[in-house]
Amino acid sequence: MPAYSTNMRLKFPILALILEIITIALFGIFVVYDDGKGHDAHHDPDHATNSSETSPMDLYPMFQDVHVMIFIGFGFLMTFLKKYGFSSVGINLLLAAFGLQWGLLMQGLWHMDKGKIKMDILKMINADFSTATVLISFGAVLGKTSPVQLLIMTILEITIFSINEHLVVSILGANDVGASMIIHAFGAYFGLAVARVLYRPGLRSGHENDGSVYHSDMFAMIGTVFLWMFWPSFNSAIADRGATQLTAVINTYVSLAACVLSAYAVSSLVEHRGKLDMVHIQNATLAGGVAVGTCADMQIQPFGAMLIGLVAGIISTLGFKHLSPILSSNLGIQDTCGVHNLHGMPGVLGGLAGIVAVAMGKAKGSAAMQAAALASSLGFALIGGAITGLIMKLPIWGQPPDQNCFDDSLYWEVPEEEGEHDGSLAAAENSKNKTEA
Amino acid sequence: MPAYSTNMRLKFPILALILEIITIALFGIFVVYDDGKGHDAHHDPDHATNSSETSPMDLYPMFQDVHVMIFIGFGFLMTFLKKYGFSSVGINLLLAAFGLQWGLLMQGLWHMDKGKIKMDILKMINADFSTATVLISFGAVLGKTSPVQLLIMTILEITIFSINEHLVVSILGANDVGASMIIHAFGAYFGLAVARVLYRPGLRSGHENDGSVYHSDMFAMIGTVFLWMFWPSFNSAIADRGATQLTAVINTYVSLAACVLSAYAVSSLVEHRGKLDMVHIQNATLAGGVAVGTCADMQIQPFGAMLIGLVAGIISTLGFKHLSPILSSNLGIQDTCGVHNLHGMPGVLGGLAGIVAVAMGKAKGSAAMQAAALASSLGFALIGGAITGLIMKLPIWGQPPDQNCFDDSLYWEVPEEEGEHDGSLAAAENSKNKTEA
Amino acid sequence: MPAYSTNMRLKFPILALILEIITIALFGIFVVYDDGKGHDAHHDPDHATNSSETSPMDLYPMFQDVHVMIFIGFGFLMTFLKKYGFSSVGINLLLAAFGLQWGLLMQGLWHMDKGKIKMDILKMINADFSTATVLISFGAVLGKTSPVQLLIMTILEITIFSINEHLVVSILGANDVGASMIIHAFGAYFGLAVARVLYRPGLRSGHENDGSVYHSDMFAMIGTVFLWMFWPSFNSAIADRGATQLTAVINTYVSLAACVLSAYAVSSLVEHRGKLDMVHIQNATLAGGVAVGTCADMQIQPFGAMLIGLVAGIISTLGFKHLSPILSSNLGIQDTCGVHNLHGMPGVLGGLAGIVAVAMGKAKGSAAMQAAALASSLGFALIGGAITGLIMKLPIWGQPPDQNCFDDSLYWEVPEEEGEHDGSLAAAENSKNKTEA
Repeated sequence: MPAYSTNMRLKFPILALILEIITIALFGIFVVYDDGKGHDAHHDPDHATNSSETSPMDLYPMFQDVHVMIFIGFGFLMTFLKKYGFSSVGINLLLAAFGLQWGLLMQGLWHMDKGKIKMDILKMINADFSTATVLISFGAVLGKTSPVQLLIMTILEITIFSINEHLVVSILGANDVGASMIIHAFGAYFGLAVARVLYRPGLRSGHENDGSVYHSDMFAMIGTVFLWMFWPSFNSAIADRGATQLTAVINTYVSLAACVLSAYAVSSLVEHRGKLDMVHIQNATLAGGVAVGTCADMQIQPFGAMLIGLVAGIISTLGFKHLSPILSSNLGIQDTCGVHNLHGMPGVLGGLAGIVAVAMGKAKGSAAMQAAALASSLGFALIGGAITGLIMKLPIWGQPPDQNCFDDSLYWEVPEEEGEHDGSLAAAENSKNKTEA
Repeated sequence: MPAYSTNMRLKFPILALILEIITIALFGIFVVYDDGKGHDAHHDPDHATNSSETSPMDLYPMFQDVHVMIFIGFGFLMTFLKKYGFSSVGINLLLAAFGLQWGLLMQGLWHMDKGKIKMDILKMINADFSTATVLISFGAVLGKTSPVQLLIMTILEITIFSINEHLVVSILGANDVGASMIIHAFGAYFGLAVARVLYRPGLRSGHENDGSVYHSDMFAMIGTVFLWMFWPSFNSAIADRGATQLTAVINTYVSLAACVLSAYAVSSLVEHRGKLDMVHIQNATLAGGVAVGTCADMQIQPFGAMLIGLVAGIISTLGFKHLSPILSSNLGIQDTCGVHNLHGMPGVLGGLAGIVAVAMGKAKGSAAMQAAALASSLGFALIGGAITGLIMKLPIWGQPPDQNCFDDSLYWEVPEEEGEHDGSLAAAENSKNKTEA
Repeated sequence: MPAYSTNMRLKFPILALILEIITIALFGIFVVYDDGKGHDAHHDPDHATNSSETSPMDLYPMFQDVHVMIFIGFGFLMTFLKKYGFSSVGINLLLAAFGLQWGLLMQGLWHMDKGKIKMDILKMINADFSTATVLISFGAVLGKTSPVQLLIMTILEITIFSINEHLVVSILGANDVGASMIIHAFGAYFGLAVARVLYRPGLRSGHENDGSVYHSDMFAMIGTVFLWMFWPSFNSAIADRGATQLTAVINTYVSLAACVLSAYAVSSLVEHRGKLDMVHIQNATLAGGVAVGTCADMQIQPFGAMLIGLVAGIISTLGFKHLSPILSSNLGIQDTCGVHNLHGMPGVLGGLAGIVAVAMGKAKGSAAMQAAALASSLGFALIGGAITGLIMKLPIWGQPPDQNCFDDSLYWEVPEEEGEHDGSLAAAENSKNKTEA
């Protein structure tokens, strides 16, 4: 069966090319350059920009920071698996490159101007954002899905995300500048729902390739550190310009710094002989960025942001240590990267912090609408993810068999590893291929 | 013979120091800080800037993006070879660091103000650009040339590039904002001409070190992804500010996104069992950035840019698969990194697209001048590269013998690899060296 | 003894959490968002900003460049050790995350406005700067200290740094825009003093893990190249806006470029058969950024900056080759990363260049005050470092025994390396742990 079903030769190229051609056609019909006239620059129509003389390139450095998070950050964060680095960074690139095009269309449909989507830097940032949901969900099913399945997930998840985002931001009028709810919680619970539907009993007792080696953990740290550094840009990119944007930067910067201390402390506390665990360091240090997202542009003061980061680092690390094994063994949710701990719980924490902060008057808005936004995000995620999972489960998309999970060689031409039977036939053949290529 | 000829002990340090001292002297004579008076900010004198109140640091974030492409992007992209990572990223740093100084002088000579080259951020961007031609050509001869040969290539190629650039931009008045012709096609065909002259029959049937291992392919992806992300900055850095620059960013962003899909699709289509090939992913995903360069600031609309990217991804991948082996076996052009597929053909495609776009009225200018610019770039590249190759072929520059090609240890002190006879004398000695150092 | 003393289980988490909670409390008392009223934007009150209409986010791209230098640059530069990559990048993250919070408080105390520290991007840049001193000193003692010792060093060093910085900048009124003296020389000699106090006779003849392997040297180059690229931001971030900032960028850009040539030339000159040594390339290429720091915003002209870079590259490389072994064997200063060669001597060179430049009228100020600033920085560093070293030497902080130095496995859960007894019990256990986690 695997000999047939995992062969990508026809199904992957045909799907990818058809999707791209349809997308180009839709761009031809709907997408034009922004002409600088009449665009409402921000998510939330209630907040006017306080800068009357913006240039169309003002947000470009912010966009590039977000771009780095999407492609280097998410891509390398997932390279921790010992034999799955090509897929992690490579399929991350594929999904994000397609997702940003699809996201631009799906988000743009709600904000058309005379039947056209007017493309500018803000729309590019939002397009990149929409792909983040997919990359989070990708983390939950990493190593257990084919590129075809993942392209299908990309289309469906971004479409559903765009509906929920429109509901939360434009209909409910809720605050979520750093997207704790609409990206992080949404992406995590969507992915967990997919993972639940795709549950593999054969992997209940683990898989020899579902782990890291020394160098793969180092590559993953490239992802972690770039995410960590640029998270202030993620949380402030679509904030109102000027002082509000500065507030979002400051809150995120100090929340992340506090989160590092608590993640390291708890990692050492729960591990044998007080040793640090790379899984915690790679992930839980980022939870402060997730959790402060909703409140990032609110007047919670730096120490408020730090408290949120401190708590996020604690619950994220404890989640990796104690909750993930339970989800896996008791609920059948096999969450490869632990996105529940990095994006799920901290995202919900961020949503709850937003409710409290609005109730305390730290920002305009309604606590009830904040709560509705959180509920909507979770609801769309769980139901959308379950439906998407069912579609992905159809046995025609080349899903890998259990024994080939977490292994690049199913979908990639993989060269030999150094030291491994040097000078063997395989090595010689590989060299030859590369030379010819 | 190799015992003598590849010894860099005198020839490399003397050449490097003399070049640097001459360069400093020339800077002392010609280069001063820009005083903000009377500089014409853009390549093309026909286009006035539409922002009357620019600050001298406005372009700095763009400059830094380009800087990352030159030093991380090109440097790590070439680390895919299993035993040539030190040279790839290290010699890349050397050539680019010297090249930007030389480029600043060579380009500045055409734009002197009272006998002085007035240095500003735009000139730094153009200096970085000029090094890109050398780094592209470096890719063609990677693993088969000595640092001394490469420094000589740097001087000659940047000098010739500056002449062609002046001709294309100032005399012909052609459009090439993203430099499909004057950098990418030029650098590729220059390098291919050098590679042809330096043809090594002994490598006709390949070389055991001319290939990747798993981790070297991962390092190369760092280069790929940084190039991919920051390419919009490359193509828009010297565009007219404001809306035109935004257009260049958008066109490049969507062209690259479309290119990813077609590169992945075709890679899967042409490989055994539909598997993806890392060589294609590392390179062909970038062809969309090259090919949209000339048209980047034109009103080709997003879908037009996407079509260019789609086609570029296809021809680049097919080139790696089918054309490179022919160039190598039939024409004696051994193109280590396949720059013909990443920069050569997509660069020509970009030039042709520019001719068509100008003919269709998408930008001011003349289709004939665009065609002349493409012809000039190819002509200077092929003739300049051939002459440069002949000079590099002189047997006094320490060129590596065939058996030592693609191996850092000829020009670098190389530590043992992990797992490889741990605790051996070599390992102990290395540790000791490092400690002493 | 090691069984007890290196166990971090209680001492590390308790210290980290207590420090963070105290820090949050101090933030609660002292730190608020900047409201844009009445802040003096620059270090030096004599220099007024020449831009009357700055936005609070103007410096944000500069901040992000500096941020990348601190977390990626320093973090990966130190990953050259074969078995110490987790600690290098991981403990770097820990120390910098705590240090920036502590630095913000310590530096802010000198500039309070109605009893409050008003946080803005400039203060964030300075907070990041303050951590650089710690990360430089970390390099001197890398591999030989516990996380607890290093947290203690962070608190003390940043506190002492803030005193010296206030003295140099506000009392003496000296110029040090790129911080050759107050960060680089200070951090290096502080670290060397600590290393002297912590002298380990047992490591006199080296340690088998105190060296690199091929891939660890590649990871270190990520750090080198990011530091190299963004150094112009480091040296110009707090310069007066406009033309002065441009001057600082240009001087640093050309100094670094010249430094690469001299570092490569001298490396080849002093090594066997003219080979390049990765230790030199990773470090000495950056000395030009350090040495031009004090003069970066002065009218020394590009060729003056290049001369400084040229000399810095030479003395740094020679220091690695000839001085470090003497410091180690004769003076008992075991400087793991050679910070004396990268930050110490080039920092002093920068201070001396500043004295000369001010004496020659290249900037406002007094040569005597410049000399006093250099002396103050060295004095605070040596005395502060010695005292800090004595406190770190108390046998209660879990310092590693000699045989466990330079080895992550003392403080980290370390996965097996690839190729190393694959399928062994250790590997299986590791996979299982990761799965559960």
